[in-house]
Amino acid sequence: MATTENFDIVIVGAGPVGLMLSTCLARWGYKIKHIDNRAEPTATGRADGIQPRSLDLLRNMGLKRKIMAHDPAKVYEVAFWDPNSKGIHRTGTWASCPKFIDTRYPFTTLLHQGLIERVFIEDIEKYGTSVQRPWTITAFKNDGADAQYPVKVDLAHVDGTASETVRAKYLFSGEGARSFVRDHLGIKIRYKDPISHVWGVMDGVVRTNFPDIKMKCTIHSDAGSIMVIPRENNMVRLYIQVASSSDKDWNPRKTATAEEVQQHAKEILRPYTISWDRVEWFSVYPIGQGIAEQYTLDERVFLGGDACHTHSPKAGQGMNTAFLDAVNLAWKIHHVESGFAPRSILSTYESERKLIAESLLDFDARYAKLFSARIPSAGEVAGASNTSHSAEENEFVKTFKASCEFTSGYGVAYNPNTINWGPSHPAQHPLIVSYQKGTSLRTGRTFHPATVTRAVDANVVHLEQQIPLNGSYRVYIFGGLPSKTSRALHDLSTHLSNPSSFYSVFTHRDNDKDRYHERHNPHTTFLTVCTILNAPRAQIDIDAMLPAVFARYRDHVYADDVWDQRVPDAKASAHAKMGLDEDAGGVVVVRPDGYVGVVVRLEEGKGTTEALNGYFSVVTGKRLGEERAIL
Amino acid sequence: MATTENFDIVIVGAGPVGLMLSTCLARWGYKIKHIDNRAEPTATGRADGIQPRSLDLLRNMGLKRKIMAHDPAKVYEVAFWDPNSKGIHRTGTWASCPKFIDTRYPFTTLLHQGLIERVFIEDIEKYGTSVQRPWTITAFKNDGADAQYPVKVDLAHVDGTASETVRAKYLFSGEGARSFVRDHLGIKIRYKDPISHVWGVMDGVVRTNFPDIKMKCTIHSDAGSIMVIPRENNMVRLYIQVASSSDKDWNPRKTATAEEVQQHAKEILRPYTISWDRVEWFSVYPIGQGIAEQYTLDERVFLGGDACHTHSPKAGQGMNTAFLDAVNLAWKIHHVESGFAPRSILSTYESERKLIAESLLDFDARYAKLFSARIPSAGEVAGASNTSHSAEENEFVKTFKASCEFTSGYGVAYNPNTINWGPSHPAQHPLIVSYQKGTSLRTGRTFHPATVTRAVDANVVHLEQQIPLNGSYRVYIFGGLPSKTSRALHDLSTHLSNPSSFYSVFTHRDNDKDRYHERHNPHTTFLTVCTILNAPRAQIDIDAMLPAVFARYRDHVYADDVWDQRVPDAKASAHAKMGLDEDAGGVVVVRPDGYVGVVVRLEEGKGTTEALNGYFSVVTGKRLGEERAIL
Repeated sequence: MATTENFDIVIVGAGPVGLMLSTCLARWGYKIKHIDNRAEPTATGRADGIQPRSLDLLRNMGLKRKIMAHDPAKVYEVAFWDPNSKGIHRTGTWASCPKFIDTRYPFTTLLHQGLIERVFIEDIEKYGTSVQRPWTITAFKNDGADAQYPVKVDLAHVDGTASETVRAKYLFSGEGARSFVRDHLGIKIRYKDPISHVWGVMDGVVRTNFPDIKMKCTIHSDAGSIMVIPRENNMVRLYIQVASSSDKDWNPRKTATAEEVQQHAKEILRPYTISWDRVEWFSVYPIGQGIAEQYTLDERVFLGGDACHTHSPKAGQGMNTAFLDAVNLAWKIHHVESGFAPRSILSTYESERKLIAESLLDFDARYAKLFSARIPSAGEVAGASNTSHSAEENEFVKTFKASCEFTSGYGVAYNPNTINWGPSHPAQHPLIVSYQKGTSLRTGRTFHPATVTRAVDANVVHLEQQIPLNGSYRVYIFGGLPSKTSRALHDLSTHLSNPSSFYSVFTHRDNDKDRYHERHNPHTTFLTVCTILNAPRAQIDIDAMLPAVFARYRDHVYADDVWDQRVPDAKASAHAKMGLDEDAGGVVVVRPDGYVGVVVRLEEGKGTTEALNGYFSVVTGKRLGEERAIL
Repeated sequence: MATTENFDIVIVGAGPVGLMLSTCLARWGYKIKHIDNRAEPTATGRADGIQPRSLDLLRNMGLKRKIMAHDPAKVYEVAFWDPNSKGIHRTGTWASCPKFIDTRYPFTTLLHQGLIERVFIEDIEKYGTSVQRPWTITAFKNDGADAQYPVKVDLAHVDGTASETVRAKYLFSGEGARSFVRDHLGIKIRYKDPISHVWGVMDGVVRTNFPDIKMKCTIHSDAGSIMVIPRENNMVRLYIQVASSSDKDWNPRKTATAEEVQQHAKEILRPYTISWDRVEWFSVYPIGQGIAEQYTLDERVFLGGDACHTHSPKAGQGMNTAFLDAVNLAWKIHHVESGFAPRSILSTYESERKLIAESLLDFDARYAKLFSARIPSAGEVAGASNTSHSAEENEFVKTFKASCEFTSGYGVAYNPNTINWGPSHPAQHPLIVSYQKGTSLRTGRTFHPATVTRAVDANVVHLEQQIPLNGSYRVYIFGGLPSKTSRALHDLSTHLSNPSSFYSVFTHRDNDKDRYHERHNPHTTFLTVCTILNAPRAQIDIDAMLPAVFARYRDHVYADDVWDQRVPDAKASAHAKMGLDEDAGGVVVVRPDGYVGVVVRLEEGKGTTEALNGYFSVVTGKRLGEERAIL
């Protein structure tokens, strides 16, 4: 018998979740077997909405420019149309991502899934990974026969002409709603909403005098309802409900022809007219709101994306949730395999991501209810757009805000656990600060965007994007006023230099390798450091003002000297946006996937280092900062 | 004898000027023979600086993203270093493009010429043009033997193995400083500055503790002078003067080895150290400040780029001047060949572009003198960065501002002529307004950037970029407050609809062609229309508020509802930035290359149309707006 080939991971399915996982792990050096049972990437149709938070992520991976090269449609506003005596009329519009959400990209990007898949496929190929097609999984078992590669996986060409057996450390199912792996594990789908729907969806180029054809629209008419979504290449997508399990004659196999859907759309849009120059894609499919009861049984075989959660297409969240599932799992596997985290961190994949899927399904229901009850008044929408937290916010405004946050992707809030510090976290220290008590950052949520000036070349940059998705923790040292903090920075560097600190303990082993030109990971892949000083750029002298430990990251030293409309009176806008004292600064630890882990005061002495060592001791499962670290 | 093939234009040389010309004309449908005597595009080195104005232009052509995909270096500040007792010290920095210049891109983009050339080459190939290499021009004559294709051009393979003779409407030399075409025409180069220099230039990856290695630096030391320019891929370019014709032992053939230049650089940079990991390119070349006495003799054979003007590399202007030469000529040829302009418009190529070259050479000299006299104080630099026009501006601050404007590319100011309206323009009308008397726009200068909201899809966009470089005049109708201007807009549309108006006279001839999906040129290629209303986007109902003539350009209707830091109190920022009345609006005509042609008040009655017809009568050489236009 031939030797079985070993892989770090076998990934089944090359849709958004599988490709995102593959791309992360390929960049970080893992050996991947990636298969998909389709002969080609998605040719037309399917998912297409990229939310603002996902665009941040794609940019952080250097992939945003390639997405934008396809000239996707951008949705800035959603319009609501309701029936009236003449047919339909617009009752209001709202921003997709109102101003109270602080984002670089206040819009949804619409581009068909196939183009997005190709961007990922090109990327993994640069790192020596490719998708083996059309292959499928036929069996797998975590038999532990090989302690290092415990999972045996049987794969076969879809036509049965070839097969192979491999062993892997991990197996991942990104197979979509019909998951062989999930079924084989006996994981049940729980249906939150007992109502199923049959949807018709059509992409095409139209002629119409309907004025909002380039906007996202929800249209209710006496003839039925439709959702309009603009697309790249002058196309328009229409979603139309063909049947619902609440119908009297409910039949999940009910279908409709393209002509029937077009005729239905014409009736709904009256008094406006519409005709099609070309139809690119048309599909009718039944879908229910379901969620997998577990995402893994053994922390070796995992599920993600549509294999874990299915829901109506209206929320435009499928691909985005898939992306974030993958990134969440990717860095945790990376940290376990690098010795940066105990295996128990893998349990947080399910606990964090399943909660998001639950919220998504809840949101899907709320989204429908919110506007079926009544149309918001202009004053309410304007009120929701204010950034102030007035006590007068009514229930509608609150729900509205929460919905916008959710659809933008910034509403993702992971609960406190070992990696997201909270009041019950095992690491407690007086210098750790919490939301609205010393910082505006919330653990388990994204870092705020902030514009700063890079010291070495005076480039005005987006701080939150400066560290690429490199699998490292992001340690942002907000240095406050250098004249006041120089002692604190010096003390911090001294204590971090202790070989047992989190900062030193994961130092590169091959330390004789030349890393002169290494910007992000000169001393370790465990973390990357940025230092942000409350000083004009021209006054920053890196070698004179920063201890060598931080000066080494010279490309990551920034001047907090750019005015920001959101904090117009601040002298140091980035400090102010993080809710940190502009003079005293503070240290923010951000997880490799961009969510805040812990925030600590910057003070003279060893307290700041102690607090950080405490947090990282829990995260890494090592006793850090002791006389000698216990590894 | 075989039939001679006819071309619209023969372009000799595929550097920046030739490629820009080729790209414009290829997109506008011309048949081009493009040759270059090099076997391949530039492999390393040569020009590399893209100024802010050029980046606007590249973006307007849809090429900026491809340039940026190479991750060029960006220069935001220039640092000045002078000798002191320890070697050298920084005496100050200034912004490359200070805040008083209103630009989207306040930096210089550094990328090697070969990568830029390839972006153009890929683009022309999409339009069926390619560069024939390595071929050269051997003879040419405007013999008029064919009235339509008056210029005979002989071409040959550089190794002499093949040759061909073609006929063309135009011949263009983008051959660089050594131009066969220029020599053959007997056009002399006039040397403004009698001093010539020998320059050494080196691109490479270095190790150094010099803190400003990622900035553009001018370094004077007791050991000599050097200029540092950051590059893509972590490279640095050094310019070092090897010899000057003012030296006692001047020898234009003087040279230096790479090692000598490196040794010299080490001495200049003391007390800092520098060493090279790798040298990508090294060259030593003599250059003088010269300008061609003419750019054309017969308005059939033209010169552009370095064939017309040579100067020191320090100003970083060569490629940018070349780009703008090409665009200036391209649209004028296009308008002559389309019947939109008389042949006399071609004379403005030389009159406009030669003046710019003269300014460039003057600037080159001023740039040196400005800082040899003394270093500006911090207060002076700060003063120059203010946007206010205080009476206290001293001579230094004025020169500084002019220099920054010039290097950014926004200092280009074409004098009044037939296309740039002025007080002596043949078209005079009381509704035409001039600089600071009804508008802040100046004819012959670029249109101001302004951010607006597109009505049809609520996208927040850059108004000045919305019309691509399509060879059309850009007619911006600033509609003011719709409640006050509805009559004026209606009257304008009525008079423009007169078949003899500039608006109607060039209507597409094949009017039965389906142009439903044509965004920019639905009714003519002579112009594109944008309408900007002082109203919130949600209140704009295109069909109700605009006459059909303007509503037809529905993708070019914008809401002037985005706040702008430069006009913080304005309700309609774009109107305010143009210096137009926010209620009454105005009409701005911008040339196809982005320079303002004329600004006219928007009033009820036929005056606005009369004023515009007057301007366009001069530009097009036709009697427009009469009972019946005289064509």
